[in-house]
Amino acid sequence: MTRLWNDPADFADEMIDGFVAANGRYVRRVTGGVARSTQTPEGQVAFVTGGGSGHYPAFGGLVGPGLAHGAAMGNLFASPSTQQVLSVARAAENGGGVFLSYGNYAGDVLNFDAAQEQLRAAGIPCQTVAVTDDVSSAGKDEIHKRRGIAGDLTVFRIAGAAAERGLNLDEVTRLARRANDRTRSFGVAFSGCSLPGADEPLFEVKEGHMAIGLGIHGEPGLGDAAIPTADGLAEMLVARLLDELPADVTSARGARVVPVLNGLGSLKYEEMFVVYRRIAQLLSEEGITAVDPHVGEYCTSFDMAGTSLTLLWLDDELEDLWDTGVDTPAYRRGSVDASQLVLASADEVAGEDVIGDADDASRAIAKTIADAFDVWRTTIDENVDELGRLDAIAGDGDHGIGMQRGIHAAQAAARDAASRGAGAATTLARAADAWSDKAGGTSGAIWGAILAAVSGHLGDAGVPSASALAQGLEAAKERVAAFGAVPGDKTLVDSLNPLVETFSARVASGGSVGDAWRAAADAATAAAAATSDMLPQMGRARAHHEKALGIPDPGAHSLALLAQALLSTAQ
Amino acid sequence: MTRLWNDPADFADEMIDGFVAANGRYVRRVTGGVARSTQTPEGQVAFVTGGGSGHYPAFGGLVGPGLAHGAAMGNLFASPSTQQVLSVARAAENGGGVFLSYGNYAGDVLNFDAAQEQLRAAGIPCQTVAVTDDVSSAGKDEIHKRRGIAGDLTVFRIAGAAAERGLNLDEVTRLARRANDRTRSFGVAFSGCSLPGADEPLFEVKEGHMAIGLGIHGEPGLGDAAIPTADGLAEMLVARLLDELPADVTSARGARVVPVLNGLGSLKYEEMFVVYRRIAQLLSEEGITAVDPHVGEYCTSFDMAGTSLTLLWLDDELEDLWDTGVDTPAYRRGSVDASQLVLASADEVAGEDVIGDADDASRAIAKTIADAFDVWRTTIDENVDELGRLDAIAGDGDHGIGMQRGIHAAQAAARDAASRGAGAATTLARAADAWSDKAGGTSGAIWGAILAAVSGHLGDAGVPSASALAQGLEAAKERVAAFGAVPGDKTLVDSLNPLVETFSARVASGGSVGDAWRAAADAATAAAAATSDMLPQMGRARAHHEKALGIPDPGAHSLALLAQALLSTAQ
Repeated sequence: MTRLWNDPADFADEMIDGFVAANGRYVRRVTGGVARSTQTPEGQVAFVTGGGSGHYPAFGGLVGPGLAHGAAMGNLFASPSTQQVLSVARAAENGGGVFLSYGNYAGDVLNFDAAQEQLRAAGIPCQTVAVTDDVSSAGKDEIHKRRGIAGDLTVFRIAGAAAERGLNLDEVTRLARRANDRTRSFGVAFSGCSLPGADEPLFEVKEGHMAIGLGIHGEPGLGDAAIPTADGLAEMLVARLLDELPADVTSARGARVVPVLNGLGSLKYEEMFVVYRRIAQLLSEEGITAVDPHVGEYCTSFDMAGTSLTLLWLDDELEDLWDTGVDTPAYRRGSVDASQLVLASADEVAGEDVIGDADDASRAIAKTIADAFDVWRTTIDENVDELGRLDAIAGDGDHGIGMQRGIHAAQAAARDAASRGAGAATTLARAADAWSDKAGGTSGAIWGAILAAVSGHLGDAGVPSASALAQGLEAAKERVAAFGAVPGDKTLVDSLNPLVETFSARVASGGSVGDAWRAAADAATAAAAATSDMLPQMGRARAHHEKALGIPDPGAHSLALLAQALLSTAQ
Repeated sequence: MTRLWNDPADFADEMIDGFVAANGRYVRRVTGGVARSTQTPEGQVAFVTGGGSGHYPAFGGLVGPGLAHGAAMGNLFASPSTQQVLSVARAAENGGGVFLSYGNYAGDVLNFDAAQEQLRAAGIPCQTVAVTDDVSSAGKDEIHKRRGIAGDLTVFRIAGAAAERGLNLDEVTRLARRANDRTRSFGVAFSGCSLPGADEPLFEVKEGHMAIGLGIHGEPGLGDAAIPTADGLAEMLVARLLDELPADVTSARGARVVPVLNGLGSLKYEEMFVVYRRIAQLLSEEGITAVDPHVGEYCTSFDMAGTSLTLLWLDDELEDLWDTGVDTPAYRRGSVDASQLVLASADEVAGEDVIGDADDASRAIAKTIADAFDVWRTTIDENVDELGRLDAIAGDGDHGIGMQRGIHAAQAAARDAASRGAGAATTLARAADAWSDKAGGTSGAIWGAILAAVSGHLGDAGVPSASALAQGLEAAKERVAAFGAVPGDKTLVDSLNPLVETFSARVASGGSVGDAWRAAADAATAAAAATSDMLPQMGRARAHHEKALGIPDPGAHSLALLAQALLSTAQ
């Protein structure tokens, strides 16, 4: 359990500050995370990683010569926002393009992909590889759906080594992809973890039992079993990984692998060494050579107790790269020639914040928007635990705190903009940016997109018409659809679409904005409730996800809550 | 809590095997622990550290160029035996003498001092420095009584750097002593840890509270307090350390310190970075420069949750040494020139095991001795939890498992010797060696000494007389007295002395061995019970140790138990 914090809302930021204070030799603080304290050599590919905080040394602890050039550091267990990834990438980039790599989670994919698009639009070449090493998170035929866990380390090291050697962006990408193709992990967990300020652990594992294949944010695994002996666990981990050799590894016998026995936080070194003893024996018995074994904490989950075994199946090219020296706050290997490193200049200066013109009518709407965010903020604050509880059943339990971070940031930004004379469009756009930037994760990106889409139809002059609002909502629906979920996937789409369709239909048949919204809110509420009978999108194939039956989707539910709350301010 | 093991009795050995399997680049297995995989350069001082296991990376994880040359690795939370320290020292030594440094605990002092004596007796120069950084474990006027915690790291690094630079034994000793004089630590704990196979944690801390100054084996601290904010904890740690500057530091302002924020096991990096953020601010406000800050796990206590702050107050000489490169399994700093390192040869070959001559009468006594150990083994197995419980009140709770390890090893050695035709003296001597070697800790050394002393009066021919037995017991009493405890300290002495005195008196007045032993056992039992009313030796000054009132000393109690058990075999 987590015990030390000041204001839980400040935890991630203060953690990054302390991390930088302790590691100024290695890293400097940039907006959105950290970059190396030394400049990326001109023309070298800048390798930027990132993800939610709470997994130290992933991701900031892995920034330094031979490994990453920067890390976007999101909130606890929440993806960094698109803006954070972009900001770190821009700080690290120096003419060689940007290589992005991260663990394969929906929120990270969304935000890293969006950052990649924006970098390319700005003329900066960019490629990404999402790490998919966790064999328990999807079948062999759906490897692209697998989550990334401690295999992050092996993929990142190959990418970092390739960049360090001056290979170009295509080569770095090819090699990182090859490392990912040849990296497999399998893990177990013995206990959950609790985030700062949370009353309860994110999840629990039955005493004396272990959850097999459980995710590093508590995502459901393959089932439970009694905790075996240390040797029994080693045998289970090795057997599962030898059961699925990477496609181009023809035989385990004679192979060379890098084994990484990773601790999740409070399983300790001594126990891991006892387990590794048997792993080493088993690999040797199978005729496999262990190269540079790793036993320690490389990708944690706060103080969760558990461990995973990762195998990187080497080939000559990968093994050659593996020898590259690395020097980062949390990970050092071999030696790095520090003589050629140049200190980076001070962090970029923030641009001036100018509010555009608006007329009085739009400014009045802006105040109403700010008032609406006040109400929304109260609504989410009152429901934060319940939303977390719903999310914990099939997801990672952070929906409540993610929504809370987003709504608090959006409310402050809207109030600030409105008080400084911004019009309706600008006020809502500021709220949208603040939401996606501070909330991070999937829901942060989606809510940012919804608000930004509506904002595009409000204007900063005059009172927007009912049909303009309907167009804005239709645009939001399209933006959200572009994220990939379809109706019936048990996502926010299931309540957003009925809301938008009902609103549009009422407006088209001459209804007032107030009446149309009332009907739309009711449609969203009914639809959110109906998600109780659906299986969740990500776990469709998994029988244990059936426990998510009977509870509404938390995203659909929070949309409905906010739609209802808005009735008290809409007219 | 600890979850993974095979047979708990094998845990420490299997842990070392796994550690070596994962770190063959750095270390090789030698009897009693590990030594560097490379030879100590000829004439370089060999720095050997060590201690109980369960504190990784202390102590084996700190072996490598720039740090230790070897580590004696005892059982869990138990000092290595004298033989272990000796064996590692001999493997590491190469003409430059041996420097021993370790945390200041009774068992370690005893065994490292004994090893020092034996090395010197063999003509190998040897010096030792016990680390005493924990300010909460004794007052300013009794610094030599303070325990060693994470300050181990700073003292060891200075010693390792001095040896690496080729300084001689006196210089290495002087610098390590200076580093110890200028190192202070202060810590708190939030939860206990449980050893492999134990049903209960070694100790518990009230939920939401922290124990201030609690030791890394659960030794009592200064009291409890509610857990403060992260900033509040930082302020408390810094204030206490600034309150007691080392003798030759005249002013904090302008000083340069190495801060080490150490995690005990399951307090996580993210929390420590939040705390460190405030520590960095506070040091800066006081005009203190933080040099090479450390935030991580350097001296753990299994999965105990807690943290300590260490400050090493640098002077020019220490800061210069601090720059030396280090490359060990768990700790790397700067760069090490690996080109001049020479792989060590294979581990020493064990000598042939020859049993000396004996006559039939003595062989019959040897069988009786082996039978006695069978009974003792059963007695300890039945009482192991109770002995641990008694010890946990004022000590570290390992008396039961320490006795168990000792008696199991002694029983096996006695049975082996007796079955191979050894006489009484040889059989008991073998049991004595096995006990002290396998049990480690204070009680292991003491029991080894008791049995060895008695063995010296048995001979391998004929039946020893009652007065020979009495002389053996008197010798044992003297050997134990040499360890420093006096009657009334609430130690094993309190039951050993009445036992020996009663036995001698009965024998002197013509009693049979059986009668004398019966009276002696009863005297020991009564005396052990009487220790309930005494305050324990080490905590005499501490009011909270009063909770140890009303329970007998575990060492005195186990001696009485064994004395009674022997009645079933004595005649």
